[in-house]
Amino acid sequence: MATSGTQRPGGRTERTRQAVLHATLDLLAERGFGELTVEAVAERSGVHKTTVYRRWSSPDGLVAAALQMGAEDDWKAPDTGSLEDDLYEVAAEVVRYFTEPALKELPTASVLAAFQSPQAAEALHDFYADRHVRMAPIAERAVARGEIPSGTDGDELVRAVCGPIFYRLFLSRERVTVAEARVTARAVAVAAREGAFTG
Amino acid sequence: MATSGTQRPGGRTERTRQAVLHATLDLLAERGFGELTVEAVAERSGVHKTTVYRRWSSPDGLVAAALQMGAEDDWKAPDTGSLEDDLYEVAAEVVRYFTEPALKELPTASVLAAFQSPQAAEALHDFYADRHVRMAPIAERAVARGEIPSGTDGDELVRAVCGPIFYRLFLSRERVTVAEARVTARAVAVAAREGAFTG
Repeated sequence: MATSGTQRPGGRTERTRQAVLHATLDLLAERGFGELTVEAVAERSGVHKTTVYRRWSSPDGLVAAALQMGAEDDWKAPDTGSLEDDLYEVAAEVVRYFTEPALKELPTASVLAAFQSPQAAEALHDFYADRHVRMAPIAERAVARGEIPSGTDGDELVRAVCGPIFYRLFLSRERVTVAEARVTARAVAVAAREGAFTG
Repeated sequence: MATSGTQRPGGRTERTRQAVLHATLDLLAERGFGELTVEAVAERSGVHKTTVYRRWSSPDGLVAAALQMGAEDDWKAPDTGSLEDDLYEVAAEVVRYFTEPALKELPTASVLAAFQSPQAAEALHDFYADRHVRMAPIAERAVARGEIPSGTDGDELVRAVCGPIFYRLFLSRERVTVAEARVTARAVAVAAREGAFTG
């Protein structure tokens, strides 16, 4: 996973980066972007304040880098063998991630930070763009199985299945459970079969 | 529109309420919830601070009341004669309202305030619940025209057509235009015709 560069993976600079960005994520989840300061991140991470300032310069820079780090995982799209079930797994993961008490603080704070910081908004955009790339096989495999027409827009499938979940979470502020993930997955799979997502 | 009560519509108390809540909406759009204070609302509205405190008590109370006032309009759901076009009008209005520079500050600040204040979140919930009631005729008329099966869940149609727009706006932070409103309206109309939104 390590990219080529001047630092050994696992070297001191990388350990510093990890410590600072994990402290940023912890504080973002605990306090939100409005209360995040370079000083607090330095204190939490045990890295000297001047080092944090020199490398990340501001709360915006810290949050953007921390959200970028969030994409450095090995997440793969589900592969259940059916379009509806793949879409259900994606939507249900969104539900769990944004509603379970032990999980929801950080993703919710990330969405909120994007309202408050253009750099955080750009990092959130990049995170979702990367997730969309990883989810492209969902539509590709459904096309290969003959479930949906070729030319189906896989990005739009993702927006269509996740959108109503996020609408409940952040607009209409309604209760949301995995039952709603099933409703949206079924509707999107039906629409996709009928060719609703081809250019 | 006036409800029965102790105040004459247009009376002094009502004028005070209007002045305070319009000042709240102005300041919410200009500064966001984090910077909203009772003092600033009093100064902007020309209403004495103690009056504002006595009636609304806090920034949360002011924002909640102001968002409730936002539902006191005569907005009606579109009635174009076709389900897809009705849904398109709804989605296109969301796009315009949240992207046009002259309009977007207040609705965006309202969504943000709901992250920061439980009272604002409840008021936003109530606003959307009221909008859903007003949009119920979209599905009812489509059923009456024979476009979609009876038993179609009109609330879910609204979530399905608006969700992908809000996903672009606040999650993936992608560009959104009325062209995307057409894509989502078409997909949802197709799914609805196939019975994807019946219980």
